[in-house]
Amino acid sequence: MIRQAALTLPSFPRGYHLITRQILDAAGALPEKGLIHVFIRHTSAGLTLNENADPSVRRDFETFMNDMVSEDYPRFIHTYEGADDMPAHLKSSIIGSSVTIPVVNHRPGLGTWQGIYLCEFRRHGGPRSIVITVTGED
Amino acid sequence: MIRQAALTLPSFPRGYHLITRQILDAAGALPEKGLIHVFIRHTSAGLTLNENADPSVRRDFETFMNDMVSEDYPRFIHTYEGADDMPAHLKSSIIGSSVTIPVVNHRPGLGTWQGIYLCEFRRHGGPRSIVITVTGED
Amino acid sequence: MIRQAALTLPSFPRGYHLITRQILDAAGALPEKGLIHVFIRHTSAGLTLNENADPSVRRDFETFMNDMVSEDYPRFIHTYEGADDMPAHLKSSIIGSSVTIPVVNHRPGLGTWQGIYLCEFRRHGGPRSIVITVTGED
Repeated sequence: MIRQAALTLPSFPRGYHLITRQILDAAGALPEKGLIHVFIRHTSAGLTLNENADPSVRRDFETFMNDMVSEDYPRFIHTYEGADDMPAHLKSSIIGSSVTIPVVNHRPGLGTWQGIYLCEFRRHGGPRSIVITVTGED
Repeated sequence: MIRQAALTLPSFPRGYHLITRQILDAAGALPEKGLIHVFIRHTSAGLTLNENADPSVRRDFETFMNDMVSEDYPRFIHTYEGADDMPAHLKSSIIGSSVTIPVVNHRPGLGTWQGIYLCEFRRHGGPRSIVITVTGED
Repeated sequence: MIRQAALTLPSFPRGYHLITRQILDAAGALPEKGLIHVFIRHTSAGLTLNENADPSVRRDFETFMNDMVSEDYPRFIHTYEGADDMPAHLKSSIIGSSVTIPVVNHRPGLGTWQGIYLCEFRRHGGPRSIVITVTGED
Protein backbone atom coordinates (compact mmCIF):
# COMPACT_ATOMS: atom_id res chain seq x y z
CA MET A 1 0.00 0.00 0.00
CA ILE A 2 1.00 3.59 -0.62
CA ARG A 3 -0.85 6.50 0.87
CA GLN A 4 -0.10 10.18 0.47
CA ALA A 5 -1.14 13.29 2.33
CA ALA A 6 -0.47 16.92 1.64
CA LEU A 7 -0.08 19.26 4.58
CA THR A 8 0.39 23.01 4.71
CA LEU A 9 2.18 24.18 7.81
CA PRO A 10 1.33 27.70 8.96
CA SER A 11 4.07 30.36 9.07
CA PHE A 12 6.68 29.71 11.69
CA PRO A 13 9.32 32.19 12.83
CA ARG A 14 12.90 31.53 11.81
CA GLY A 15 14.14 28.63 13.90
CA TYR A 16 13.66 24.96 14.65
CA HIS A 17 10.18 23.72 15.49
CA LEU A 18 8.85 20.34 16.61
CA ILE A 19 6.17 19.15 14.19
CA THR A 20 6.03 15.44 15.03
CA ARG A 21 2.40 15.60 16.06
CA GLN A 22 1.22 17.46 12.96
CA ILE A 23 3.07 15.05 10.66
CA LEU A 24 1.78 11.90 12.34
CA ASP A 25 -1.76 13.22 12.46
CA ALA A 26 -1.63 13.92 8.73
CA ALA A 27 -0.05 10.51 8.02
CA GLY A 28 -3.05 8.73 9.56
CA ALA A 29 -3.23 5.02 10.42
CA LEU A 30 0.09 3.28 9.77
CA PRO A 31 0.65 -0.15 8.23
CA GLU A 32 2.13 -3.03 10.21
CA LYS A 33 5.56 -2.27 8.77
CA GLY A 34 6.84 0.21 6.25
CA LEU A 35 8.24 3.70 5.85
CA ILE A 36 7.07 7.28 6.28
CA HIS A 37 8.67 9.76 3.90
CA VAL A 38 8.22 13.44 4.78
CA PHE A 39 9.17 15.99 2.15
CA ILE A 40 9.26 19.79 2.18
CA ARG A 41 8.62 21.48 -1.15
CA HIS A 42 10.91 24.47 -0.54
CA THR A 43 14.55 25.45 -0.91
CA SER A 44 14.85 27.75 2.08
CA ALA A 45 13.55 25.42 4.79
CA GLY A 46 14.42 21.88 5.82
CA LEU A 47 13.39 18.82 7.80
CA THR A 48 15.46 16.85 10.27
CA LEU A 49 15.15 14.55 13.27
CA ASN A 50 16.53 15.66 16.59
CA GLU A 51 15.85 15.97 20.30
CA ASN A 52 12.19 16.35 21.17
CA ALA A 53 12.57 17.39 24.79
CA ASP A 54 14.56 20.39 25.97
CA PRO A 55 13.85 23.52 23.86
CA SER A 56 17.40 24.75 24.52
CA VAL A 57 18.59 22.23 21.91
CA ARG A 58 16.48 23.97 19.27
CA ARG A 59 17.72 27.37 20.37
CA ASP A 60 21.32 26.19 20.05
CA PHE A 61 20.57 24.89 16.56
CA GLU A 62 19.41 28.38 15.61
CA THR A 63 22.41 30.12 17.16
CA PHE A 64 25.03 27.74 15.82
CA MET A 65 23.68 27.35 12.29
CA ASN A 66 23.36 31.13 11.93
CA ASP A 67 27.03 31.43 12.82
CA MET A 68 28.12 28.51 10.64
CA VAL A 69 26.28 29.86 7.59
CA SER A 70 26.47 33.56 8.33
CA GLU A 71 24.43 36.28 6.66
CA ASP A 72 27.59 38.34 6.86
CA TYR A 73 29.65 35.98 4.71
CA PRO A 74 31.25 38.54 2.40
CA ARG A 75 31.50 36.48 -0.79
CA PHE A 76 27.80 35.81 -1.50
CA ILE A 77 26.67 37.21 -4.84
CA HIS A 78 23.05 35.99 -4.64
CA THR A 79 21.92 38.77 -2.32
CA TYR A 80 18.94 40.48 -3.98
CA GLU A 81 16.38 38.26 -2.22
CA GLY A 82 17.60 39.40 1.20
CA ALA A 83 20.50 38.65 3.51
CA ASP A 84 18.79 35.54 4.86
CA ASP A 85 18.10 33.99 1.45
CA MET A 86 21.42 32.48 0.42
CA PRO A 87 22.16 31.18 3.95
CA ALA A 88 18.70 29.58 3.85
CA HIS A 89 19.49 27.77 0.60
CA LEU A 90 22.75 26.45 2.00
CA LYS A 91 21.22 25.32 5.28
CA SER A 92 18.46 23.58 3.34
CA SER A 93 21.01 21.41 1.52
CA ILE A 94 23.15 20.86 4.62
CA ILE A 95 20.18 19.78 6.76
CA GLY A 96 18.13 18.19 3.98
CA SER A 97 14.62 18.45 2.62
CA SER A 98 13.21 15.10 3.68
CA VAL A 99 13.27 12.51 6.44
CA THR A 100 12.37 8.83 6.14
CA ILE A 101 11.21 7.01 9.26
CA PRO A 102 10.51 3.29 9.62
CA VAL A 103 7.06 2.09 10.64
CA VAL A 104 7.28 -0.77 13.13
CA ASN A 105 4.14 -2.52 14.41
CA HIS A 106 1.84 0.22 13.14
CA ARG A 107 3.87 2.89 14.93
CA PRO A 108 6.64 5.28 13.93
CA GLY A 109 9.95 3.60 14.76
CA LEU A 110 11.47 6.77 16.21
CA GLY A 111 13.82 6.59 19.16
CA THR A 112 12.63 7.90 22.50
CA TRP A 113 14.22 11.29 21.98
CA GLN A 114 13.64 11.75 18.25
CA GLY A 115 11.18 14.32 16.97
CA ILE A 116 10.64 15.86 13.56
CA TYR A 117 11.90 19.43 13.21
CA LEU A 118 10.67 21.96 10.73
CA CYS A 119 13.76 24.07 10.10
CA GLU A 120 12.59 27.51 9.02
CA PHE A 121 15.56 29.38 7.62
CA ARG A 122 13.82 32.54 6.43
CA ARG A 123 12.71 35.43 8.62
CA HIS A 124 9.36 35.47 6.83
CA GLY A 125 9.12 32.07 5.19
CA GLY A 126 5.33 31.93 5.09
CA PRO A 127 3.32 28.69 5.02
CA ARG A 128 5.29 25.59 4.04
CA SER A 129 4.00 22.76 1.89
CA ILE A 130 4.71 19.17 2.97
CA VAL A 131 4.06 15.86 1.19
CA ILE A 132 3.85 12.72 3.32
CA THR A 133 4.15 9.32 1.64
CA VAL A 134 3.49 6.17 3.65
CA THR A 135 4.46 2.83 2.11
CA GLY A 136 4.07 -0.54 3.73
CA GLU A 137 2.10 -3.69 4.18
CA ASP A 138 -0.28 -5.06 6.77
CA MET B 1 5.64 -1.55 -8.89
CA ILE B 2 9.37 -0.90 -8.73
CA ARG B 3 11.38 0.24 -11.68
CA GLN B 4 15.09 1.00 -11.82
CA ALA B 5 17.28 2.87 -14.22
CA ALA B 6 21.02 3.33 -14.33
CA LEU B 7 22.39 6.57 -15.67
CA THR B 8 25.95 7.69 -16.26
CA LEU B 9 26.38 11.43 -16.11
CA PRO B 10 29.22 12.84 -18.21
CA SER B 11 32.10 14.65 -16.50
CA PHE B 12 31.09 17.94 -14.96
CA PRO B 13 33.48 20.60 -13.66
CA ARG B 14 33.71 21.06 -9.91
CA GLY B 15 30.54 22.82 -8.81
CA TYR B 16 26.77 22.48 -8.55
CA HIS B 17 24.84 21.48 -11.65
CA LEU B 18 21.12 21.19 -12.37
CA ILE B 19 20.32 17.66 -13.57
CA THR B 20 16.56 17.54 -13.02
CA ARG B 21 15.84 16.94 -16.70
CA GLN B 22 18.35 14.12 -17.09
CA ILE B 23 17.06 12.36 -13.97
CA LEU B 24 13.40 12.62 -14.92
CA ASP B 25 14.07 11.50 -18.48
CA ALA B 26 15.86 8.44 -17.17
CA ALA B 27 13.11 7.75 -14.61
CA GLY B 28 10.52 7.46 -17.38
CA ALA B 29 6.73 7.35 -16.89
CA LEU B 30 5.81 7.81 -13.25
CA PRO B 31 3.13 5.94 -11.29
CA GLU B 32 0.04 7.69 -9.94
CA LYS B 33 1.70 8.03 -6.54
CA GLY B 34 5.00 6.89 -5.13
CA LEU B 35 8.61 7.89 -4.64
CA ILE B 36 11.67 8.53 -6.78
CA HIS B 37 14.97 7.65 -5.12
CA VAL B 38 18.10 9.02 -6.80
CA PHE B 39 21.44 7.66 -5.66
CA ILE B 40 25.02 8.54 -6.58
CA ARG B 41 27.53 5.70 -6.36
CA HIS B 42 30.50 7.85 -5.33
CA THR B 43 32.09 9.26 -2.19
CA SER B 44 33.39 12.52 -3.63
CA ALA B 45 30.19 13.85 -5.16
CA GLY B 46 26.67 14.38 -3.84
CA LEU B 47 23.04 15.02 -4.69
CA THR B 48 20.76 17.65 -3.23
CA LEU B 49 17.63 19.66 -4.00
CA ASN B 50 17.88 23.40 -4.29
CA GLU B 51 16.94 26.45 -6.32
CA ASN B 52 16.49 25.75 -10.01
CA ALA B 53 16.42 29.34 -11.26
CA ASP B 54 19.19 31.87 -10.71
CA PRO B 55 22.67 30.36 -11.39
CA SER B 56 24.16 32.70 -8.78
CA VAL B 57 22.76 30.37 -6.10
CA ARG B 58 24.87 27.53 -7.47
CA ARG B 59 27.94 29.75 -7.65
CA ASP B 60 27.46 30.74 -4.02
CA PHE B 61 27.18 27.06 -3.07
CA GLU B 62 30.57 26.48 -4.65
CA THR B 63 32.20 29.50 -3.01
CA PHE B 64 30.77 28.92 0.43
CA MET B 65 31.26 25.16 0.63
CA ASN B 66 34.87 25.51 -0.51
CA ASP B 67 35.45 27.92 2.37
CA MET B 68 33.52 25.83 4.90
CA VAL B 69 35.45 22.67 4.03
CA SER B 70 38.72 24.18 2.95
CA GLU B 71 41.46 22.44 1.01
CA ASP B 72 43.84 24.40 3.24
CA TYR B 73 42.59 22.86 6.47
CA PRO B 74 45.93 22.06 8.09
CA ARG B 75 45.00 18.91 10.01
CA PHE B 76 44.03 16.59 7.15
CA ILE B 77 46.18 13.46 6.99
CA HIS B 78 44.43 11.85 4.00
CA THR B 79 46.16 14.01 1.42
CA TYR B 80 47.81 11.66 -1.09
CA GLU B 81 44.80 11.64 -3.42
CA GLY B 82 45.03 15.41 -3.89
CA ALA B 83 44.07 18.51 -1.95
CA ASP B 84 40.48 18.31 -3.17
CA ASP B 85 39.93 14.67 -2.12
CA MET B 86 39.33 14.86 1.62
CA PRO B 87 37.16 18.00 1.33
CA ALA B 88 35.16 16.11 -1.31
CA HIS B 89 34.56 13.18 1.07
CA LEU B 90 33.39 15.51 3.81
CA LYS B 91 31.10 17.51 1.53
CA SER B 92 29.63 14.27 0.24
CA SER B 93 28.51 13.28 3.73
CA ILE B 94 27.40 16.79 4.67
CA ILE B 95 25.28 17.19 1.51
CA GLY B 96 24.32 13.54 1.11
CA SER B 97 24.43 10.91 -1.61
CA SER B 98 20.75 10.52 -2.38
CA VAL B 99 17.49 12.42 -2.65
CA THR B 100 13.98 10.98 -2.39
CA ILE B 101 11.16 12.86 -4.10
CA PRO B 102 7.44 12.06 -3.88
CA VAL B 103 5.47 11.25 -7.03
CA VAL B 104 2.06 12.91 -6.99
CA ASN B 105 -0.45 12.35 -9.81
CA HIS B 106 2.16 10.85 -12.13
CA ARG B 107 4.43 13.86 -11.66
CA PRO B 108 7.41 14.66 -9.44
CA GLY B 109 6.10 16.42 -6.34
CA LEU B 110 8.86 19.01 -6.35
CA GLY B 111 8.16 22.57 -5.27
CA THR B 112 8.21 25.28 -7.91
CA TRP B 113 11.79 26.23 -7.17
CA GLN B 114 13.25 22.81 -6.45
CA GLY B 115 15.68 21.20 -8.84
CA ILE B 116 18.09 18.29 -8.48
CA TYR B 117 21.75 19.29 -8.16
CA LEU B 118 24.69 17.12 -9.02
CA CYS B 119 27.34 18.33 -6.56
CA GLU B 120 30.71 17.62 -8.12
CA PHE B 121 33.35 18.04 -5.44
CA ARG B 122 36.43 16.94 -7.38
CA ARG B 123 38.31 19.01 -9.94
CA HIS B 124 38.38 16.02 -12.27
CA GLY B 125 35.65 13.75 -11.01
CA GLY B 126 34.98 12.02 -14.32
CA PRO B 127 31.65 10.43 -15.24
CA ARG B 128 29.33 9.73 -12.32
CA SER B 129 27.12 6.69 -11.93
CA ILE B 130 23.52 7.17 -10.77
CA VAL B 131 20.84 4.62 -9.84
CA ILE B 132 17.21 5.74 -9.98
CA THR B 133 14.56 3.66 -8.22
CA VAL B 134 10.88 4.47 -8.72
CA THR B 135 8.35 2.80 -6.43
CA GLY B 136 4.63 3.35 -6.48
CA GLU B 137 1.22 2.24 -7.60
CA ASP B 138 -1.22 3.22 -10.31
CA MET C 1 7.74 -7.32 -0.19
CA ILE C 2 8.85 -5.46 2.92
CA ARG C 3 11.15 -6.95 5.49
CA GLN C 4 12.45 -5.34 8.64
CA ALA C 5 15.28 -6.14 11.01
CA ALA C 6 16.30 -4.54 14.27
CA LEU C 7 19.97 -4.44 15.13
CA THR C 8 21.74 -3.22 18.25
CA LEU C 9 25.28 -2.10 17.60
CA PRO C 10 27.67 -2.44 20.53
CA SER C 11 29.30 0.68 22.00
CA PHE C 12 31.77 2.31 19.68
CA PRO C 13 34.24 5.03 20.65
CA ARG C 14 33.57 8.53 19.37
CA GLY C 15 34.42 8.52 15.67
CA TYR C 16 33.44 7.09 12.31
CA HIS C 17 33.16 3.32 11.97
CA LEU C 18 32.53 1.05 8.99
CA ILE C 19 29.44 -1.09 9.63
CA THR C 20 28.60 -2.24 6.09
CA ARG C 21 29.05 -5.90 6.95
CA GLN C 22 26.90 -5.79 10.08
CA ILE C 23 24.10 -3.97 8.24
CA LEU C 24 24.07 -6.30 5.24
CA ASP C 25 24.20 -9.39 7.43
CA ALA C 26 21.19 -8.13 9.37
CA ALA C 27 19.35 -7.19 6.16
CA GLY C 28 19.52 -10.79 4.93
CA ALA C 29 18.71 -11.98 1.40
CA LEU C 30 17.87 -9.08 -0.88
CA PRO C 31 15.12 -8.88 -3.50
CA GLU C 32 15.89 -8.63 -7.21
CA LYS C 33 15.46 -4.87 -7.06
CA GLY C 34 14.44 -2.47 -4.34
CA LEU C 35 15.78 -0.29 -1.56
CA ILE C 36 17.49 -0.74 1.80
CA HIS C 37 16.68 1.93 4.38
CA VAL C 38 18.94 2.06 7.42
CA PHE C 39 17.82 4.19 10.34
CA ILE C 40 19.47 5.08 13.65
CA ARG C 41 17.11 5.72 16.54
CA HIS C 42 19.28 8.36 18.27
CA THR C 43 19.89 12.10 18.16
CA SER C 44 23.60 12.09 19.01
CA ALA C 45 24.83 9.66 16.36
CA GLY C 46 24.37 9.44 12.60
CA LEU C 47 24.69 7.30 9.49
CA THR C 48 26.38 8.19 6.23
CA LEU C 49 28.04 6.62 3.19
CA ASN C 50 31.69 7.28 2.55
CA GLU C 51 35.02 5.74 1.67
CA ASN C 52 35.40 2.15 2.79
CA ALA C 53 39.15 1.77 2.27
CA ASP C 54 41.77 4.00 3.88
CA PRO C 55 41.09 4.55 7.62
CA SER C 56 42.74 7.98 7.38
CA VAL C 57 39.52 9.24 5.76
CA ARG C 58 37.59 8.33 8.88
CA ARG C 59 40.20 9.93 11.12
CA ASP C 60 39.95 13.15 9.11
CA PHE C 61 36.17 13.07 9.46
CA GLU C 62 36.62 12.98 13.22
CA THR C 63 39.20 15.77 13.29
CA PHE C 64 37.39 18.07 10.90
CA MET C 65 33.88 17.65 12.24
CA ASN C 66 35.10 18.25 15.80
CA ASP C 67 36.57 21.54 14.63
CA MET C 68 33.56 22.50 12.53
CA VAL C 69 31.14 21.87 15.40
CA SER C 70 33.39 22.64 18.31
CA GLU C 71 32.74 21.73 21.94
CA ASP C 72 34.27 25.10 22.74
CA TYR C 73 31.67 27.09 20.82
CA PRO C 74 30.93 29.75 23.43
CA ARG C 75 27.24 30.37 22.72
CA PHE C 76 25.76 26.95 23.50
CA ILE C 77 23.19 27.05 26.29
CA HIS C 78 22.31 23.33 26.25
CA THR C 79 25.40 22.26 28.18
CA TYR C 80 24.18 20.27 31.19
CA GLU C 81 24.43 16.92 29.37
CA GLY C 82 28.16 17.41 28.76
CA ALA C 83 30.34 19.37 26.37
CA ASP C 84 29.96 16.73 23.65
CA ASP C 85 26.15 16.65 23.74
CA MET C 86 25.09 19.72 21.79
CA PRO C 87 27.81 19.22 19.13
CA ALA C 88 26.53 15.64 18.81
CA HIS C 89 22.97 16.84 18.17
CA LEU C 90 24.16 19.27 15.50
CA LYS C 91 26.38 16.73 13.77
CA SER C 92 23.50 14.27 13.78
CA SER C 93 21.34 16.66 11.76
CA ILE C 94 24.19 17.76 9.49
CA ILE C 95 25.20 14.16 8.66
CA GLY C 96 21.73 12.63 8.91
CA SER C 97 20.10 9.72 10.68
CA SER C 98 19.41 7.40 7.77
CA VAL C 99 20.78 6.19 4.46
CA THR C 100 18.83 4.63 1.60
CA ILE C 101 20.67 2.32 -0.78
CA PRO C 102 19.30 0.78 -3.97
CA VAL C 103 19.19 -2.99 -4.36
CA VAL C 104 20.23 -4.06 -7.86
CA ASN C 105 20.17 -7.72 -8.93
CA HIS C 106 19.86 -8.96 -5.36
CA ARG C 107 22.90 -6.95 -4.27
CA PRO C 108 23.43 -3.56 -2.64
CA GLY C 109 23.95 -1.02 -5.41
CA LEU C 110 26.81 0.70 -3.60
CA GLY C 111 29.72 2.12 -5.56
CA THR C 112 33.09 0.40 -5.27
CA TRP C 113 34.30 2.76 -2.56
CA GLN C 114 31.09 3.28 -0.63
CA GLY C 115 30.65 1.87 2.83
CA ILE C 116 28.17 2.58 5.61
CA TYR C 117 29.56 4.62 8.50
CA LEU C 118 28.24 4.65 12.01
CA CYS C 119 29.03 8.18 13.17
CA GLU C 120 29.34 8.09 16.94
CA PHE C 121 29.32 11.66 18.19
CA ARG C 122 29.36 11.01 21.95
CA ARG C 123 32.35 10.01 24.01
CA HIS C 124 30.26 7.35 25.72
CA GLY C 125 27.32 6.82 23.41
CA GLY C 126 26.60 3.26 24.47
CA PRO C 127 24.88 0.68 22.25
CA ARG C 128 22.98 2.11 19.28
CA SER C 129 19.67 0.86 17.95
CA ILE C 130 19.22 0.47 14.19
CA VAL C 131 16.14 -0.39 12.13
CA ILE C 132 16.67 -1.82 8.64
CA THR C 133 13.78 -1.84 6.18
CA VAL C 134 14.13 -3.66 2.85
CA THR C 135 11.49 -3.05 0.19
CA GLY C 136 11.46 -4.58 -3.25
CA GLU C 137 10.22 -7.22 -5.60
CA ASP C 138 11.60 -10.44 -7.05
